[in-house]
Amino acid sequence: MPEKLNIGLIGAGRIGRVHGENIRFHVPGAEIVAVADLYSDKVKDWAYNLGIKHVFDDPQKIIEDERIKAVLICSSTDTHAPLIIQAARAGKHVFCEKPIDFDLNKIREALNEVEKAGVKLQIGFQRRFDPGFKKAYNLIGQGKIGDIRVIKITSRDPAPPPIEYIKVSGGLFLDMTIHDFDMARYLSRSEVIEVHAVGGVMVDKAIGEAGDIDTAIVTLKFACGAIGVIDNCRQSAYGYDQRVEILGSKGCAMVGNPPLTPTVLGTEEGILADKLQNFFIERYQQAYIEEIKAFVNCVLKDQQPPVTGNDGLQPVLIGLAAQRSLAEGRTVPLKYL
Amino acid sequence: MPEKLNIGLIGAGRIGRVHGENIRFHVPGAEIVAVADLYSDKVKDWAYNLGIKHVFDDPQKIIEDERIKAVLICSSTDTHAPLIIQAARAGKHVFCEKPIDFDLNKIREALNEVEKAGVKLQIGFQRRFDPGFKKAYNLIGQGKIGDIRVIKITSRDPAPPPIEYIKVSGGLFLDMTIHDFDMARYLSRSEVIEVHAVGGVMVDKAIGEAGDIDTAIVTLKFACGAIGVIDNCRQSAYGYDQRVEILGSKGCAMVGNPPLTPTVLGTEEGILADKLQNFFIERYQQAYIEEIKAFVNCVLKDQQPPVTGNDGLQPVLIGLAAQRSLAEGRTVPLKYL
Amino acid sequence: MPEKLNIGLIGAGRIGRVHGENIRFHVPGAEIVAVADLYSDKVKDWAYNLGIKHVFDDPQKIIEDERIKAVLICSSTDTHAPLIIQAARAGKHVFCEKPIDFDLNKIREALNEVEKAGVKLQIGFQRRFDPGFKKAYNLIGQGKIGDIRVIKITSRDPAPPPIEYIKVSGGLFLDMTIHDFDMARYLSRSEVIEVHAVGGVMVDKAIGEAGDIDTAIVTLKFACGAIGVIDNCRQSAYGYDQRVEILGSKGCAMVGNPPLTPTVLGTEEGILADKLQNFFIERYQQAYIEEIKAFVNCVLKDQQPPVTGNDGLQPVLIGLAAQRSLAEGRTVPLKYL
Amino acid sequence: MPEKLNIGLIGAGRIGRVHGENIRFHVPGAEIVAVADLYSDKVKDWAYNLGIKHVFDDPQKIIEDERIKAVLICSSTDTHAPLIIQAARAGKHVFCEKPIDFDLNKIREALNEVEKAGVKLQIGFQRRFDPGFKKAYNLIGQGKIGDIRVIKITSRDPAPPPIEYIKVSGGLFLDMTIHDFDMARYLSRSEVIEVHAVGGVMVDKAIGEAGDIDTAIVTLKFACGAIGVIDNCRQSAYGYDQRVEILGSKGCAMVGNPPLTPTVLGTEEGILADKLQNFFIERYQQAYIEEIKAFVNCVLKDQQPPVTGNDGLQPVLIGLAAQRSLAEGRTVPLKYL
Repeated sequence: MPEKLNIGLIGAGRIGRVHGENIRFHVPGAEIVAVADLYSDKVKDWAYNLGIKHVFDDPQKIIEDERIKAVLICSSTDTHAPLIIQAARAGKHVFCEKPIDFDLNKIREALNEVEKAGVKLQIGFQRRFDPGFKKAYNLIGQGKIGDIRVIKITSRDPAPPPIEYIKVSGGLFLDMTIHDFDMARYLSRSEVIEVHAVGGVMVDKAIGEAGDIDTAIVTLKFACGAIGVIDNCRQSAYGYDQRVEILGSKGCAMVGNPPLTPTVLGTEEGILADKLQNFFIERYQQAYIEEIKAFVNCVLKDQQPPVTGNDGLQPVLIGLAAQRSLAEGRTVPLKYL
Repeated sequence: MPEKLNIGLIGAGRIGRVHGENIRFHVPGAEIVAVADLYSDKVKDWAYNLGIKHVFDDPQKIIEDERIKAVLICSSTDTHAPLIIQAARAGKHVFCEKPIDFDLNKIREALNEVEKAGVKLQIGFQRRFDPGFKKAYNLIGQGKIGDIRVIKITSRDPAPPPIEYIKVSGGLFLDMTIHDFDMARYLSRSEVIEVHAVGGVMVDKAIGEAGDIDTAIVTLKFACGAIGVIDNCRQSAYGYDQRVEILGSKGCAMVGNPPLTPTVLGTEEGILADKLQNFFIERYQQAYIEEIKAFVNCVLKDQQPPVTGNDGLQPVLIGLAAQRSLAEGRTVPLKYL
Repeated sequence: MPEKLNIGLIGAGRIGRVHGENIRFHVPGAEIVAVADLYSDKVKDWAYNLGIKHVFDDPQKIIEDERIKAVLICSSTDTHAPLIIQAARAGKHVFCEKPIDFDLNKIREALNEVEKAGVKLQIGFQRRFDPGFKKAYNLIGQGKIGDIRVIKITSRDPAPPPIEYIKVSGGLFLDMTIHDFDMARYLSRSEVIEVHAVGGVMVDKAIGEAGDIDTAIVTLKFACGAIGVIDNCRQSAYGYDQRVEILGSKGCAMVGNPPLTPTVLGTEEGILADKLQNFFIERYQQAYIEEIKAFVNCVLKDQQPPVTGNDGLQPVLIGLAAQRSLAEGRTVPLKYL
Repeated sequence: MPEKLNIGLIGAGRIGRVHGENIRFHVPGAEIVAVADLYSDKVKDWAYNLGIKHVFDDPQKIIEDERIKAVLICSSTDTHAPLIIQAARAGKHVFCEKPIDFDLNKIREALNEVEKAGVKLQIGFQRRFDPGFKKAYNLIGQGKIGDIRVIKITSRDPAPPPIEYIKVSGGLFLDMTIHDFDMARYLSRSEVIEVHAVGGVMVDKAIGEAGDIDTAIVTLKFACGAIGVIDNCRQSAYGYDQRVEILGSKGCAMVGNPPLTPTVLGTEEGILADKLQNFFIERYQQAYIEEIKAFVNCVLKDQQPPVTGNDGLQPVLIGLAAQRSLAEGRTVPLKYL
């Protein structure tokens, strides 16, 4: 039996636990050997049940542990860049949740250190691993829709996060739309060169008072000549809505929302289909598994990560351009950022 | 401009009027020149608006009119066979609503007279002309599903007819299922050789008291080796339900229900699609047009009618077998009828 | 029987004939008594078959005919404004195809004359009468989706028109998107206050050489606070694609594309649903009937037309703003036009 | 932390492994402590990876182990009844794959022993735990469709099993339809009182030579007055097709097939939706998890199993009646069996 990849998990909040459990139950080639979390007390039972031997409150314990070959950074966004740098310097491969940072300089510094160290860095854009979106990506790659003309992405959360979260989220474009920017790059296999954004506060005034918006439409131009549009809302009464559509010269690939069940009820009011998946943890359950499998795989086989450091940088650039477009009411080319 | 086919309409109830209007508005090559109806007073305004010149209360006026080359028999079922015979003897082509009769001898006598006279006879199984069912028929003909294995037909009315209608309807199998028997023959391009029926009174006790049932499942064996099943109900809370499904060795053709509109409403209860079409007049609007076009066409071009006299006879045979199966609780082969 | 509304039809090209036939077959309260067309020779047979008594090559014959109470203007766009003015001065009610004109001054002059004359003017935005879009409009009116936040409209033609047509079309925004601008106003029950457009030539270089684009995304801000987006393409391999989606605080109304038939084919390649309707004549068949019924009705009952002169003006304003936005690469507020 | 339920797994073929892995990864309250399989060599690696400590080739080792409180019987059908009896006598709770046996006497003997021993017995009808079917069951329980009138079940395998399997399978009705008989009882909350079956050999002559059929339609009467129909085929070109439909007095619940992904491709051929799930292991992935959770739960909480011994007996009775109906060409009431 081959040796397992020893992984350290930094941050065992909601998403950190998803990765921890997925590695335990779906990735035979890897093992979480230690977890570090500010609230290590709250993490202990969870870790014990998963068979994770060490629970720390200081991530340095993981960085310094020579048996650990890779880290999963799932702590708060402000810690991402410093931890990437420390882990890279310690020769550890890194899986880091999005976004790397809101500050381009910090991102670039982190990417530099990763490059210097020659370690792998994969960014947590899990939607690329969703079977539906991946199938659309593959259909495009197989030439089924011809040349891409228009990319449309809809992303609506079931309900807004707490205001406290909104305040440190980096704003709608860097917190929520960032996934759609990544999806746009992924599906187009091209770079965004120009951005225009409109938006407003329609869901909750408190979001506006926190300096953010909750509803937006972002128009994109791609280097390949295609154009695109993303629409976002922090609230969707009918559930978590995640769709894409790619119009090409020969056809159109469309990804819809899988319902909770394929059960419908016909009555005199019409034909009622089931609700959508609750939220990202449920909707992207399979994607999270595939994502972390891919990370372990790229480390074990010494391959390029499927979502690179540059893939972490570009959506931040687009998000900053969208912020500027919204603020200044004009189109913003990315080359000036 | 070529001469128009002069048609006489016998019976201007609901379905007679549909045919009359369709000829007026959709069949440039034909004209209703006279209508006969027991209640000619009630028919006058309608006829006037359509530009029909003559309104009689006696169908003999139409039979005897030498300028009339074809008749549409849309009067009550008990008049079908005698009128077919009279029209045939007068050398007129005949379109007759289903069923020809409930009595096999009367049907055979009528078909004999038609054959002797060498006139066309088309029976009103309009569903064959529905674009959806026709497409399924064509897919089968093109070999897209390979050899047919299983045919499934669902036919549910939105609400039962009045009890007075039930009493003279010939019973569920000869009134309602008869369309499905025809659909089974049409799609299979084969003959039914054995029938088994179960059924009951679930919608309205009064239907049972009238000696009929309102819900049934009929199993069929076809000469080609395929098997089939029809399920019927006189009431469907969610609307008029008309589906077929043909499983073959290479695929499966399925015809669903077109909704009233393609508009859906997503709310926290789920995704609500629109209701189904109201009933057969709306659901088969296009089919009725195509049906009567086809009749006029086969007369004008001296072609075989697309639904022949034998196509009118066979479903009655199947329906009588289903009645016997239900009464005797056993499988009934058609050859013994 | 009440007197029929005598109508004169000006222009018997494709759309003029649709209206003529619909009045003949679906609007008992009106009659086309004369048609004027530059190519009256080509129109004669069609007119004869419909029972239209007079065929002219000069529309003045219709304007001057006192028995004619209303005109349908279906001639080329450059004739719309002058004919509206002449008809209004002659006291005739007017149904005019879109757009009224590409020139705001000419539109305003025509609307002034209509107002002075006190005649009805209805503009041919037929999509408002489509059962699916109307149902979405009604769901919104019933409060089913709460306050509107985002309106999305997709409109893709199956194939681009001939280059000769493109050259006189007024450009994508005034020829094609104009319907979507109207739909946006209709569904939002609000006015567009700001426009941003991106677009390009992706379908056919010749369209670019003619000074037009063939693919575009237009972002809208509404007076009510909502935002919206329209995506257009002159070519769609999978057929005529006409969808809308309105996200509100309590739900989302979505209008999809009705397939040609509800027949699907399941094979080892997947489940293949039928193609979409061919193009606007087929897709909006019912809408064209309802539209012209509504016009006749508003004249006969002396009511406000359901699509007013201002409804004809506003989309042209939005289209001009979109043209400027595209040319200047910036957001264009409508108040400056 | 509460003690875990120690389970012994008998038979580690395909389905045994599914249960083993589900307990390992999804049922924290239980642990497979030993596995017995005739081919213990082939099982070792799998067991080691799951952390199962003991691997035997003799199931008696599990029956005799006092630390083991429950067994999962996943060995061949002929061993089910004897192993149930032995396990029951040893005071162990039993989860047994379907069918218990093909022989009614053996089933009854096994159920007697279970009753005498006072242990739990749950039969492996996993479809009851599928979220879609369960939702339909719940909708019925909530009165959403009113009184049940018609139950329709479609079950088609993607491809027939090897002939060697067919020969020991008990035949179509006891191997494949048995799941549908269970579903019919589950959804109707009633008992089947009469059966009629037609069928034939349409997929592979070798199946006929083995004395079996591969395609069938089975009609059912229920004690509650409803009627039902099941259609089966051993081959389905478009994939594993598992649907149910329950028509009631107030509505209709329908369970469709979840596609592999919600991704569709629109081209000039139509709109192509994704394939269906491959086969039962994929289609019922969630159901298998819920099923085994329910078993562990009923043991730990000393509750009635959700699928009882009688639930294992009844579908065999129905299957035998279907066999007789097919052989004798008549309707078979269950009370005479």
